[in-house]
Amino acid sequence: MSTPPAPHRLNFPELDREIEVQGEETIFHGARRNGLRIVGACGGRGTCGTCVVRVVEGRIDHVHSAAPGLLETDDAATGVEAPAPGRRKWLRACQLRVRSDCTIEVAPRSLAPVVRADVDFGDAGETLPLDPAVSNHDLMLPGATLDDNRSDADRVLQALALPDLDIDLVAARGLSVALRDGDAATWALRVRRHGHELIDFAPVGSKSLGLGVDLGTTNVAAFLIDLESGARLASLGIENPQTAWGADLISRINHAIGGSRAADDLREAAVAAINGLAHDLCRAVGSHSGCIVDAVVCGNTAMHHLLLGLPVRQLGRAPFVAALHAPTDVKARDLGLVFCPGASVHLAPNIGGFVGGDHVSTLLATEDRWRPLGTSLVMDIGTNTEISLIHGGEISSASVPSGPALEGGHISCGMRAADGAIERVSTVEGRLVVHTIGNRAPVGLCGSGVLDALATLRRLEIVSARGRIAAAHPDVEETDGLRAALLAPGVRLTQHDVRAVQLAKAAIRTGVELLLRDHGIAEQRIDRFIIAGAFGAYIDIASGIDIGLFPDLPAGRYAQVGNAAGLGTRRMLASLTARTRAAEIAGACRYVELSTRGEFQKTFMHHIGFPSELPRRSQ
Amino acid sequence: MSTPPAPHRLNFPELDREIEVQGEETIFHGARRNGLRIVGACGGRGTCGTCVVRVVEGRIDHVHSAAPGLLETDDAATGVEAPAPGRRKWLRACQLRVRSDCTIEVAPRSLAPVVRADVDFGDAGETLPLDPAVSNHDLMLPGATLDDNRSDADRVLQALALPDLDIDLVAARGLSVALRDGDAATWALRVRRHGHELIDFAPVGSKSLGLGVDLGTTNVAAFLIDLESGARLASLGIENPQTAWGADLISRINHAIGGSRAADDLREAAVAAINGLAHDLCRAVGSHSGCIVDAVVCGNTAMHHLLLGLPVRQLGRAPFVAALHAPTDVKARDLGLVFCPGASVHLAPNIGGFVGGDHVSTLLATEDRWRPLGTSLVMDIGTNTEISLIHGGEISSASVPSGPALEGGHISCGMRAADGAIERVSTVEGRLVVHTIGNRAPVGLCGSGVLDALATLRRLEIVSARGRIAAAHPDVEETDGLRAALLAPGVRLTQHDVRAVQLAKAAIRTGVELLLRDHGIAEQRIDRFIIAGAFGAYIDIASGIDIGLFPDLPAGRYAQVGNAAGLGTRRMLASLTARTRAAEIAGACRYVELSTRGEFQKTFMHHIGFPSELPRRSQ
Repeated sequence: MSTPPAPHRLNFPELDREIEVQGEETIFHGARRNGLRIVGACGGRGTCGTCVVRVVEGRIDHVHSAAPGLLETDDAATGVEAPAPGRRKWLRACQLRVRSDCTIEVAPRSLAPVVRADVDFGDAGETLPLDPAVSNHDLMLPGATLDDNRSDADRVLQALALPDLDIDLVAARGLSVALRDGDAATWALRVRRHGHELIDFAPVGSKSLGLGVDLGTTNVAAFLIDLESGARLASLGIENPQTAWGADLISRINHAIGGSRAADDLREAAVAAINGLAHDLCRAVGSHSGCIVDAVVCGNTAMHHLLLGLPVRQLGRAPFVAALHAPTDVKARDLGLVFCPGASVHLAPNIGGFVGGDHVSTLLATEDRWRPLGTSLVMDIGTNTEISLIHGGEISSASVPSGPALEGGHISCGMRAADGAIERVSTVEGRLVVHTIGNRAPVGLCGSGVLDALATLRRLEIVSARGRIAAAHPDVEETDGLRAALLAPGVRLTQHDVRAVQLAKAAIRTGVELLLRDHGIAEQRIDRFIIAGAFGAYIDIASGIDIGLFPDLPAGRYAQVGNAAGLGTRRMLASLTARTRAAEIAGACRYVELSTRGEFQKTFMHHIGFPSELPRRSQ
Repeated sequence: MSTPPAPHRLNFPELDREIEVQGEETIFHGARRNGLRIVGACGGRGTCGTCVVRVVEGRIDHVHSAAPGLLETDDAATGVEAPAPGRRKWLRACQLRVRSDCTIEVAPRSLAPVVRADVDFGDAGETLPLDPAVSNHDLMLPGATLDDNRSDADRVLQALALPDLDIDLVAARGLSVALRDGDAATWALRVRRHGHELIDFAPVGSKSLGLGVDLGTTNVAAFLIDLESGARLASLGIENPQTAWGADLISRINHAIGGSRAADDLREAAVAAINGLAHDLCRAVGSHSGCIVDAVVCGNTAMHHLLLGLPVRQLGRAPFVAALHAPTDVKARDLGLVFCPGASVHLAPNIGGFVGGDHVSTLLATEDRWRPLGTSLVMDIGTNTEISLIHGGEISSASVPSGPALEGGHISCGMRAADGAIERVSTVEGRLVVHTIGNRAPVGLCGSGVLDALATLRRLEIVSARGRIAAAHPDVEETDGLRAALLAPGVRLTQHDVRAVQLAKAAIRTGVELLLRDHGIAEQRIDRFIIAGAFGAYIDIASGIDIGLFPDLPAGRYAQVGNAAGLGTRRMLASLTARTRAAEIAGACRYVELSTRGEFQKTFMHHIGFPSELPRRSQ
């Protein structure tokens, strides 16, 4: 057995990060595994050219035997300037392996952007109602003398004069130094308290930051909050590095049950992502992650379990039992998260099956939209799609595996929503016309583009009601027996891609129909159809109705609310009242297991095709 | 700069332990740093021959340029059998360095013995009143089905039906597997609860062990308790591996403030010692340290701080302020201790200065002896000596640095109480006669021997009232101007040794006198003089009075109670009521700082000499 290549350290000076990559890992995959916010819209397949880096120092090697021409990015296409004389070239990180410790520069446009609320929204961002878990107490204390040599802890506890206080061990380690940091006669100190526990001792006036994390199967979004004002400070989203072990939950569960080391891979990847997001967000606002005094994480049940290190074997097979549903506070350090010494992480409660805290968070954030109405449907479209039907004062919740196709994943030319992604498809005189993000030359399809493309192909009868791509059409080509609709030069939607979307939309529509059937109500009775999630924010509802993803309701009944899970997470971060409300909502939800029902398969098959006639557009 | 030698792994099959030693470390020092219970009475100087090992496999090297003859132990003297043909020789571990990974056998007599209560005491050992912090709940639960797929945590919590329960994160990780360990239809489980938290899920009937630790500056004693019966199961004592960084507290504090890595050295050594003791004790009773569900540790304030990783800089200089005095529960894993998943460690409260939880524990264990009387004195003799004067319903506590001399440390021929140590010295016809432990040829002096030797030398006027060794006496020899009394062939008490004892006894006597003076009472008013500690159990009180260590009280007022701190620790381990009582006692003690008093030095100088006349022995 040959020895694996030694790991190397990669330094990213602009990002203030240093990571370790394994010998056979590309720079892109190593960076992503370590939670670096590098963009790679195609997931590292080498097709999109969005993960551009310059190796400032160190030795590198090329993946496979790819020709150098492929490795060097087309400067014109990527928008990166040509190398100055003596400087190295910009290259695709997914095509590079390192052969020594390296110093690396990531092209600015290949970094997921930190959105600063004050800069990007002109400080007009949301301000949340405050009722935080962590409070600050600024103390001025007389310094110790021989006549008053109480322990440092007693001095602080007696000044606070609150009953039953404990001190977190790691926080206690910093107390004596924090007290003696300034004037010897008078000691000034900011004490942070979480419930009955003192969790940090800091200089008076130091920031109190809160981190909210929406830990999705495919994407991880994080938000930084000022817990003294309730203001959102900054946001950042990256791909979940766990995708390296499978795009969907079942793949990851199967990996995790392969052994404790395998489960640790997934856990550590999620932890690295959150630590990376915390680092970059804090740095963007001139702070550091030691100022994060509280955090809230929401995710589906599998994401929740994998992050906490809970076993997932019993979650992945009937009767699909979670280890833990209740809202949970754990020490950040017990998870490997590097925040302030005694910081906790609040995990939003789960409902059942894979329906987890992210859906609870969505329900919390959208409550004012669904609560007043008779019948509402709340849907989080993602790799798993969660659906709640609210009817007659009851909430029924279910989950269906919809796969990554609707987000542009596992689609031959799929990519994340980034420059060059086709996001809209329409027809002009019977021929396809595409619109890309950033108006750049098309390089792939993002989720909304997939949906639009399919609706358009269906409208042009290039795709049949049963989902077959027509043989004879100028925009169809066939390679090795596989037909594909050509959307733009080099960008295709293949027969396989169409099938993937069919499976996704049939699963989602089946979930909706079975929940309605349980209550004996028709689709048309839905007063409000709330579509949450980043993907759901950008799609064309009409296209969704045309391909049968959504029921044919009047457009006004649909509400596209964007990342409501993120908003719910921020509310829980700012307010204990919101956490209590989230727990109440989770407790009120009745989980419905659909996968073991006989009628699921039948209904699914009914929806696998496309509507044979285009619906008359309702108003 | 040359590269330091690589660390090697040492395997000790008989002990079920594997450790890593640094390249320049001897086997003895590496073993001790890792908490292995190897005996080394002389502390690794190569003089006592008590750390005997056989290298079964691997390459070794000799320390210094010592002649091979010195390295091989004298088989007759050590009681180890001669090597069988083809087997390697027994060697002194303190004289060996390893040059590869090794397998090592420790001579049985070179291992600190695990004392099993049922074997060594015929099961007639103490049984403690029980009121433990951790309770067991044995549950029988219906297995999960599609119709009852509550989370595993909810299933357990609902069965327990206790309010406000939480589940420790690490314990939660083991719940799902523990539930599914047996029958699928009915799940059986033992749940361990510490207050409002579930800390472990185990098979029904699994043992609940408690570990008590008396973390002394020089010695660490540990006790294993059955928390279901209150029976003491086993005991074991080893030297504190922190002695590698200094025999006394000030040396260790000075090392620790040299940097966080230096403080970690000391913390990790204490943790290794406790983990090693836990491992060996559990193994001796056929269990493993995962069955330890609760632990209590007591030590002086510096030991307490170093174990918890609290800073000691401010503790070592005026005004001598501790970071933390209050009784504290911390997660064992936060300290690096490997017990059951959610086990806590209870740290006994400190009083002030260096007077810590070990003295509180002694006061707790001896309360029935001092509480009923008018005036009592409780003294823990150690490297630091703690003294409490109980008078008129008040407890005044102080600490004096007495050094290791009275325990046989830092004495030229000093050694721990082990075979060959002189423990008694008397006179026959004006000449010295010695008695050794195990009746072996004398190899050194242990603490009680030092005290006896000095009292005898004083009685013979070989040592003057000012502490000078007489020039002309058949039992005195002089080398390089340094006089020494020859006690046995090769065993001397030098002028330096006499000085060390003078400093120790003067410090202790000064402590007693100043406490008495504060209350305006005379020595003779002491109704009971309680001497605790392993050393205190073996000394001859009359010798102590003769050299002026103790006041000349009637013998009946003295009580030698042995390791009372250990007994107090076991009581706290078995009972929350005892912990509450310990906290009350600690709160009632008034700490008296002696070191900064002007009168300390004057009184100390008054006591530095020996009584000029031997006291008439009181009865």
